[in-house]
Amino acid sequence: MSNPVDQYIESRLDDSIAELSRLCAQPSVSAQGLGVKECVELVAQMVRARGFTAQVHPTRGHPIVTAEAKGKKNKTLLFYNHYDVQPPEPLELWNSPPFTPTLRDGKLFARGVSDDKGHIQSRLSAIDAVRAANNGELPCHIKFVIEGEEEISSVNLPPFVEQHARELAADACIWESGGVNFQEQPTLMLGMRGICYVELSVECLTQDVHSGQGGSIFPNAAWRLTWALATLKDKNERVLIPGFYDAIKSPTARDLDMLAKLPDSSADWTRMYGVKEFLKGLKPGVELKREQVFVPTCTICGLNAGYQGKGSKTVLPARASAKIDFRLVPDQDPEDIVAKLRAHLDAQGFSDVRVDFLGGEKPGRTDPDHPFIKLVADCMREIYNAEPQLSPIVGGSGPYHAFLYYLHVPIGISGVGHAGSGAHAPNENMRLDLFVKGTQHTARVIQRFAER
Amino acid sequence: MSNPVDQYIESRLDDSIAELSRLCAQPSVSAQGLGVKECVELVAQMVRARGFTAQVHPTRGHPIVTAEAKGKKNKTLLFYNHYDVQPPEPLELWNSPPFTPTLRDGKLFARGVSDDKGHIQSRLSAIDAVRAANNGELPCHIKFVIEGEEEISSVNLPPFVEQHARELAADACIWESGGVNFQEQPTLMLGMRGICYVELSVECLTQDVHSGQGGSIFPNAAWRLTWALATLKDKNERVLIPGFYDAIKSPTARDLDMLAKLPDSSADWTRMYGVKEFLKGLKPGVELKREQVFVPTCTICGLNAGYQGKGSKTVLPARASAKIDFRLVPDQDPEDIVAKLRAHLDAQGFSDVRVDFLGGEKPGRTDPDHPFIKLVADCMREIYNAEPQLSPIVGGSGPYHAFLYYLHVPIGISGVGHAGSGAHAPNENMRLDLFVKGTQHTARVIQRFAER
Repeated sequence: MSNPVDQYIESRLDDSIAELSRLCAQPSVSAQGLGVKECVELVAQMVRARGFTAQVHPTRGHPIVTAEAKGKKNKTLLFYNHYDVQPPEPLELWNSPPFTPTLRDGKLFARGVSDDKGHIQSRLSAIDAVRAANNGELPCHIKFVIEGEEEISSVNLPPFVEQHARELAADACIWESGGVNFQEQPTLMLGMRGICYVELSVECLTQDVHSGQGGSIFPNAAWRLTWALATLKDKNERVLIPGFYDAIKSPTARDLDMLAKLPDSSADWTRMYGVKEFLKGLKPGVELKREQVFVPTCTICGLNAGYQGKGSKTVLPARASAKIDFRLVPDQDPEDIVAKLRAHLDAQGFSDVRVDFLGGEKPGRTDPDHPFIKLVADCMREIYNAEPQLSPIVGGSGPYHAFLYYLHVPIGISGVGHAGSGAHAPNENMRLDLFVKGTQHTARVIQRFAER
Repeated sequence: MSNPVDQYIESRLDDSIAELSRLCAQPSVSAQGLGVKECVELVAQMVRARGFTAQVHPTRGHPIVTAEAKGKKNKTLLFYNHYDVQPPEPLELWNSPPFTPTLRDGKLFARGVSDDKGHIQSRLSAIDAVRAANNGELPCHIKFVIEGEEEISSVNLPPFVEQHARELAADACIWESGGVNFQEQPTLMLGMRGICYVELSVECLTQDVHSGQGGSIFPNAAWRLTWALATLKDKNERVLIPGFYDAIKSPTARDLDMLAKLPDSSADWTRMYGVKEFLKGLKPGVELKREQVFVPTCTICGLNAGYQGKGSKTVLPARASAKIDFRLVPDQDPEDIVAKLRAHLDAQGFSDVRVDFLGGEKPGRTDPDHPFIKLVADCMREIYNAEPQLSPIVGGSGPYHAFLYYLHVPIGISGVGHAGSGAHAPNENMRLDLFVKGTQHTARVIQRFAER
């Protein structure tokens, strides 16, 4: 049974995809600064075309776009999105050029089409539909925060949210991303882990040395780094930094219940990533799900030293470095973790290992029993004709905590993605059928939110 | 007091440098296969032009040139050299193009000019001078082995020496490299450490994964590698592979005496490489010298995993690898070390860490009291008017052991190099004054060897 709003969204699909294709054709690679300025203008035009007042706020990095439109009811729904995209490389793995949006097999392919430009478009198309059904009026106030640094740790966003808390004030928030899982069930995510990203580096010499000359007597940066890393986590995955686990809140019975109801993805991981066995010997089940999101990590994201080419080169490397991310769970704090890391390295005799803090975000969660979350879930049930899958928290990170902390809003994460959308990978894509569903869901959330 | 041979060498310097410049203008980068074929032909021509019978032997890798000329006395002196050179990269650091030999400040600059084409030229110019002083006759038989894979571990040379032991039979051998030290004293090196070069690699997943998704539950190749490496050597530089030290022969009192007489290079190392302190807290002195050459190493030459670019990328790397070289001392054996490494990793629970053996050479030494060594040292004392610096063994490696083992020859290492010759580095150079001295020394060794 389709209502006029849903029908409107279906009938205007071609227009929405055409507008989204223009947005995706505009590169906006935050890590490389590519096309950011042009994309900001385009995004501001897109919201202004809907009668929103839009402002472009410069930051130390890329600008933040905010927008606002008044509606009938004095309640405000806030959308958080980002216009920046991941680098498209490796280009040779794309079947069509990343910034030439291409329709194929019911999907639109382009860098950023799912993460996150499809979501920007979906929110705007939902607003168009709701407005058309209300004689051109919005049923409630709507605000946007559309940032340009989500793919590079949103470093400038939390202070911006703090400073603009009054302008951004809202009653509820819909977050970027989300969609359906491997089982085609709509997902409703209720929190994000935090992150503390650091680079460890050691420099023992001013230049590389022939290993036959110096190997026995000169300090080796790669060894110093290896030994330092080995003090951070043991083979049983226990992080050895004193105090690392202190601030952790255990998941509640309600959390574990939500996890238990989530589908098992282990077969999909084996198929997609070749996972042969899970850490700690965990078998599929609630313990594995708990470990995935409620246990903090210490992940080596990269190692770099000396010669890495083909064959052998007998060199003693002058420098070595590692990229590490710690995914944090409530109530761990990235700045506290960096301080504990530094103290630990010093205590272990690694004062020569430099720690550069490349970015941090606090973990955050929304109450699963908040009425707004119930509303978002109800709309999912109606639109997707399937039971929403509630995740108490997801493994990834974002500037989620800043919105919770400075704006005191409940946050629902729902969107147009799917398990094979290839975000951050070549051939990123968005399914058109899920764009329709996700947009219908957003439209229904706006209407229902205004009604209650 | 200069004799006719020495005068001949001085007077023909321009011709020698012109011939050497032609040789250096011909690239012969073994690691890249660049110009090897042309260089082989050129080297064969150069020896044939001196009346040598030359043969070019194909191998699985680059060809080996052998050459032989008969002389008056039925004694044979063998020269070991190599025509291959290191890659010239990074090109931007060269002041003149690496394959455009350029005279500047009394030095000839070119890739390979010191390592090892200057030595090939020096041996040939010495032969010319000796022949001129002997009515065109050689005073003894002379043979050459000039290989093309010295810079890539000489993998095909030891079996070649074994198979051609009869054709290569000689009474003594002069090795490539050598020259004067930081103090301008001639060096006479009497052995080389061995080497066992391996690549350790781990692959846990078929592709990289978002660290937020997999960090808590998927195995991380970079962590597996880090933990495996940390079991190989402790912070006190003790290699932890069972049996690693078993085959080691302690240096003799004579060895320590030779070391004690060698000049202290620690200030030069600090200046050149920024060494702030030596491993194990060693201070300049005989213990540091002993550690440098008589203690085997386990050096990480390279580390490679995941993201190594600027800033942060939250990735769980599917693969990780490390390049490791073990410098070996008498009587360690590279194949034995690889077997012990594999057994150790298995015993430590790292059967998932793959070991690829990229090359090995056994350590080898020549008796410092062999009459031929005394002869070489005497000639140095006469030519350089300085006391030769005898090194019982050097930190580097080469196919030295194969010559000792299959040909039973004493081997002296002497040549035209200097401490700033930049072998393996940009702006490699050879000092013309040392070319003359080194060539005069080689000529005198040939004459004296034939006389005795």
